[in-house]
Amino acid sequence: MIEILFSAPESYGGKYIPPIREALDSFGLAHRIETECSDPERVDYIICAPNGPVTDFSPFTHAKAVLSLWAGVERFVDNPSLTQPLLRMVNPGMTAGMVEYVTGHVLRHHLGMDAHIRREKPEWQPKIPPLASERRVSVLGLGALGQASAQALAGLGFDVAGWSRSPKSIAGVRCLSGANGLEEALGRAEILVLLLPLTVETENILDAARLARLPEGAVIINPGRGPLIDDEALLAALDRGHLAHATLDVFRTEPLPGAHPFWHHPQITVTPHIASDTRPAHAARVIAENIRRGEAGEPFLHQVDRSAGY
Amino acid sequence: MIEILFSAPESYGGKYIPPIREALDSFGLAHRIETECSDPERVDYIICAPNGPVTDFSPFTHAKAVLSLWAGVERFVDNPSLTQPLLRMVNPGMTAGMVEYVTGHVLRHHLGMDAHIRREKPEWQPKIPPLASERRVSVLGLGALGQASAQALAGLGFDVAGWSRSPKSIAGVRCLSGANGLEEALGRAEILVLLLPLTVETENILDAARLARLPEGAVIINPGRGPLIDDEALLAALDRGHLAHATLDVFRTEPLPGAHPFWHHPQITVTPHIASDTRPAHAARVIAENIRRGEAGEPFLHQVDRSAGY
Repeated sequence: MIEILFSAPESYGGKYIPPIREALDSFGLAHRIETECSDPERVDYIICAPNGPVTDFSPFTHAKAVLSLWAGVERFVDNPSLTQPLLRMVNPGMTAGMVEYVTGHVLRHHLGMDAHIRREKPEWQPKIPPLASERRVSVLGLGALGQASAQALAGLGFDVAGWSRSPKSIAGVRCLSGANGLEEALGRAEILVLLLPLTVETENILDAARLARLPEGAVIINPGRGPLIDDEALLAALDRGHLAHATLDVFRTEPLPGAHPFWHHPQITVTPHIASDTRPAHAARVIAENIRRGEAGEPFLHQVDRSAGY
Repeated sequence: MIEILFSAPESYGGKYIPPIREALDSFGLAHRIETECSDPERVDYIICAPNGPVTDFSPFTHAKAVLSLWAGVERFVDNPSLTQPLLRMVNPGMTAGMVEYVTGHVLRHHLGMDAHIRREKPEWQPKIPPLASERRVSVLGLGALGQASAQALAGLGFDVAGWSRSPKSIAGVRCLSGANGLEEALGRAEILVLLLPLTVETENILDAARLARLPEGAVIINPGRGPLIDDEALLAALDRGHLAHATLDVFRTEPLPGAHPFWHHPQITVTPHIASDTRPAHAARVIAENIRRGEAGEPFLHQVDRSAGY
């Protein structure tokens, strides 16, 4: 009998537990899932959200893994009591949702849609946009989400560069890395997409100096993590006309407070953290597969490198 | 010496004639391009726009072909004096531009972007859209533009059906044809894309009855031809809440008159015929290739089937 603790806000249980049971059953794995734990030492796996009740992982001395329901694990990585193998949520549904958000908003800015969507008076001024092949897009971060997004953009014909800390190779995408690569990725980006993990190194990576590296009239799309951008520097770059627009899905504080200037800025579009969501049925299959691997002694999928932070 | 008459509004000449000369030179084809014709019987090819000065093609008794600068040839097809082989403009740049417009606006409606783009007050209400694989899109018209658009949408994961008069087969796209096929294509279309040619049979193809076949809340995107839709029926279907939105790039009268109700309707987005444009350098290569074929006695590319009207 595999003992599983499910630690997440109450609303998660109804959505996630039934498909997780079903997926475990399909592997023939006898299990018990509890939402409250009477005997931490007996727990084999902890499935959890960063905002769930368990914050001290030290009593779970025999747990084989902590399986995150979220893709971003910065809150777990910062938790010194969490010493068990930590597995990120990566699943095809979440990747597909992110690719749709990124390609949709890149095309929106590329085609200049907002002028038509927001137009209030008749105005017939045909302005043909350049072709995607003439539009330079840079994607910062080439993890599962960044890589899939960069490839989809390249598939639509965009001139795409991707940047990551360590060198990567992706068909159809000019892959850059390191400090010089970052300068080059920023300097060419008519449209910049942020899909970096949040770490000590990436917090405020888009500060005033790096925003100034972007070409005049550039657009930023951030479905990654809020603290990647220095909020004040972003507002200043928009206000002085250096940047044309920012479309932001993630924020330092969520929900974004009503008084925050992002809500009212004409060159900022706020989306309420909808770019990509963990869909329970997809997530359940990934979780069950990792538990199967744990029981079989096989290597886990999507294990976090604690030294890198993601 | 190949004699070519260029018949188009004056503004076209500067854009088109230099790249056409260059493309013909690259094939080693000695030629003369005139914009006014002294001797119609000596003209070998007529390159023209429907709004150019030549409206009577009967004096050009030795012309081997009429090469349209536009994709839509309904105005030429209606001209009884035009008996020479008529070649449509089909080129990769134009197809790419159309695919970008179609995928961009389909993603826009799929993701519900307008609510975020037009929001004026703070409002954090995360509503995760379905995945593209759960979204049914139908493309009416499977010519060069419709086929490329349907394939791009399928490549992004959408559940795509395409409809054409005669049966076709496109990988990843459910291909429908004939009258029953049209009913099925409409009945499933959460998002409907119109890329039909304008013919006697397709004028007003989206009348009140066919609009009523669309599922409630459907969205229409028309980058094809204005008269494909019955304007009054469209307004009625939007006003009674059956349709959610229409994004229109083409109109019965262009520029769309300032007093037209489409400009002011909150559920209509007007774009000023920008979905796809003939880009001179690309068009020149297609024109030169067809002249080369004409001189070599090879079959022309993109010849219009006069009985079908496109």
